[in-house]
Amino acid sequence: MKPIQVGLLGIGTVGSGTFEVLKRNQEEIQRRAGRGIEVTMVADLDVARAKSIVGANVQVVDDARKVIANPDIDIVVELIGGYGIAKQLVLEAIDAGKHVVTANKALLAVHGTEIFAAAHKKGVMVAFEAAVAGGIPIIKALREGLTANRIQWLAGIINGTTNFILSEMRDKGLTFDDVLKQAQALGYAEADPTFDIEGVDAAHKATLMSAIAFGVPVQFDKAYVEGITKLESQDIKYAEQLGYRIKLLGISKRTAAGIELRVHPCLVPAKRLIANVEGAMNAVMVHADAVGTTLYYGKGAGSEPTASAVIADLVDITRLHTADPLNRVPHLAFQPDAMSNLPILPMAQVVTSYYLRLRVADQAGVLAKVTGILANADISIDAVLQREAGEGESHTDLIILTHDCVEAKMNQALAEMQKLTTVLAPITRIRKEELN
Amino acid sequence: MKPIQVGLLGIGTVGSGTFEVLKRNQEEIQRRAGRGIEVTMVADLDVARAKSIVGANVQVVDDARKVIANPDIDIVVELIGGYGIAKQLVLEAIDAGKHVVTANKALLAVHGTEIFAAAHKKGVMVAFEAAVAGGIPIIKALREGLTANRIQWLAGIINGTTNFILSEMRDKGLTFDDVLKQAQALGYAEADPTFDIEGVDAAHKATLMSAIAFGVPVQFDKAYVEGITKLESQDIKYAEQLGYRIKLLGISKRTAAGIELRVHPCLVPAKRLIANVEGAMNAVMVHADAVGTTLYYGKGAGSEPTASAVIADLVDITRLHTADPLNRVPHLAFQPDAMSNLPILPMAQVVTSYYLRLRVADQAGVLAKVTGILANADISIDAVLQREAGEGESHTDLIILTHDCVEAKMNQALAEMQKLTTVLAPITRIRKEELN
Repeated sequence: MKPIQVGLLGIGTVGSGTFEVLKRNQEEIQRRAGRGIEVTMVADLDVARAKSIVGANVQVVDDARKVIANPDIDIVVELIGGYGIAKQLVLEAIDAGKHVVTANKALLAVHGTEIFAAAHKKGVMVAFEAAVAGGIPIIKALREGLTANRIQWLAGIINGTTNFILSEMRDKGLTFDDVLKQAQALGYAEADPTFDIEGVDAAHKATLMSAIAFGVPVQFDKAYVEGITKLESQDIKYAEQLGYRIKLLGISKRTAAGIELRVHPCLVPAKRLIANVEGAMNAVMVHADAVGTTLYYGKGAGSEPTASAVIADLVDITRLHTADPLNRVPHLAFQPDAMSNLPILPMAQVVTSYYLRLRVADQAGVLAKVTGILANADISIDAVLQREAGEGESHTDLIILTHDCVEAKMNQALAEMQKLTTVLAPITRIRKEELN
Repeated sequence: MKPIQVGLLGIGTVGSGTFEVLKRNQEEIQRRAGRGIEVTMVADLDVARAKSIVGANVQVVDDARKVIANPDIDIVVELIGGYGIAKQLVLEAIDAGKHVVTANKALLAVHGTEIFAAAHKKGVMVAFEAAVAGGIPIIKALREGLTANRIQWLAGIINGTTNFILSEMRDKGLTFDDVLKQAQALGYAEADPTFDIEGVDAAHKATLMSAIAFGVPVQFDKAYVEGITKLESQDIKYAEQLGYRIKLLGISKRTAAGIELRVHPCLVPAKRLIANVEGAMNAVMVHADAVGTTLYYGKGAGSEPTASAVIADLVDITRLHTADPLNRVPHLAFQPDAMSNLPILPMAQVVTSYYLRLRVADQAGVLAKVTGILANADISIDAVLQREAGEGESHTDLIILTHDCVEAKMNQALAEMQKLTTVLAPITRIRKEELN
């Protein structure tokens, strides 16, 4: 089957990430989608730069309307941003019968009602997973994963720039202004950071999540928006003394009177998982009547994390276009005729690191013998902890953390150590995972 | 349109939760699905108990095959569990052309290949979101949310019983045996807890996630399985001294040689979010090339959390059956003609709690005046922190945490406090959310 043909409007950070990931993972994506997905046309004002990214096999134009007018293009990806020309182009693409994928939260939070109505009338999809919390599939969770529930509230760290600033203010006791400058230098904040630091970007995202959670139209104009520009370091310190962290949250809550929709700095109990989301990471908590509280965490911005969401939308549309609708999503994610024959490894071939606890005689030379066995097996040591022998005790505990090694080698070293007469009990071995 | 008719095989904990949530949230679920979803038939050996749960309007039988044979039933929900009769009934339901929803991880981890092939051949869906991590939509995230990615590894706390036991052992310094007895008394562990504490349940779930993540068939027999029965409290303490927590993780990882698939106790750096998942909660980390690390957190078991996943699958199937395929999932989750007109509230009507910081004169009576104003406004105080005035300072900081009140009242109280001559600077007000 001919690949699905995608046209990109704009090839900046997210556009180039989308192009790159689609190319790099094309084999796996095709196995999941049941059909190839290819960027075949790009519109960007900077044609030379665009060509340097996509190479000679992709048509590059400076006029987005040429992409929309191309009958071979199945899906238009709008990555221009803002309310202006982007709105016009999205509406024109819908009118031309194209599906649209967009990362444009501002556009949908303000003009969503008009755009979704146009798409519904024309029978095309406007997909926007990338508009909220970057690569975290939160739109899918709210729209499909939690459909059983009456959602009661949601609260999210949905702007990485402000969360980075707040984390740095707390960690290093710096002022807002100092951290903002640092964030700009690191590329975590834009030259004009107003939309981020004043809470507008978070409010766009909260507006979209609120509409999906509660079944109300998007109403950005009703959102309460307060940023972090007036936050002082001393409040972060006082909050900490009281057991809280300060986070910029986007909150929407169902009450008897109506829907609360608000973005503002917030004290959150330090023991909540979301209070420990640091740096530029995002997280969304959803509280619903059947499932209770769930939380979704990941990178909320950046080239490839956002591209991950754009491409998930492309796969969703492709699966609808091509697969038997009753097998729209394959049972095991990949199409049944596209399963891999990669073997599941025996445990002896697994590579990991280890925690070892040895009950040893409290005498000279024990540590040397044990570490000698590990060294002979090429297992390097990360840390050693030796409990002092208690009064009158003739034994003690020796704890060793190792670096990565293959399990077979560790098994052999363990057998050798166990044979030492100075090792007085069966050795405890627990595997260690850094998960980083 | 006639509601989708669902038949339950088994109405124990998850079955009764499914029945209850479908009934309680029927209006919202219909607005999302575009069509009603009703349990119209139940099979359970204990007919009397089943009737006491579902009432007179639902047909109750003691023979599951009568549900499968009923031509009015669109979807069969298998909640019997185990590999035995459940397997036979699922295959018969598929053969009868019914879609199947199941929470049966054991069945799918062991016989998934045969079952999915039968479903594929017959053109029906076998949906199993409830089989892994209860109400957390992790199957959907892996199968649809992360389709852009080459997944590198996943690691999950996917058994609540063992995580509860490990949390208690660490918190209270108790032994495994003591905590197990307590967990059984609290209903967190079953009378025969073997499948949980030996890691088998976690391995079933890890097997399913591994297949979806890497596009390999389900191969439970290749999984390495080690439980927590031999863990000693002292190892939890030593690990803590080294900066780690011990968790039972289900891990699957792609390596050049093949797929690692293993369940065992694991040291995890204490600073990782997943190390702080306590009690019976579940969480799954996924590391993938484009999106980086994402994490999904929530209740992994229990009646309504698991029902949440069962019903999400019912809605997925219903949306496919009825909606225009190109609008399978409505843009804003609810069908366009079923939006709510709940108002977005003005901020003055929002109810929340507050952190206040007042720069006050260091003199008697200030606290009385400030708290008097709050009392007059019916705003009750949760905590007060007063910084000691420094040497030679004539002012100090007064920090107040309040309980919930409506924002309008707080605005008025703030205006009054601001007028006090002993309040020397603009008052800082930050809202507080407990998120519990």
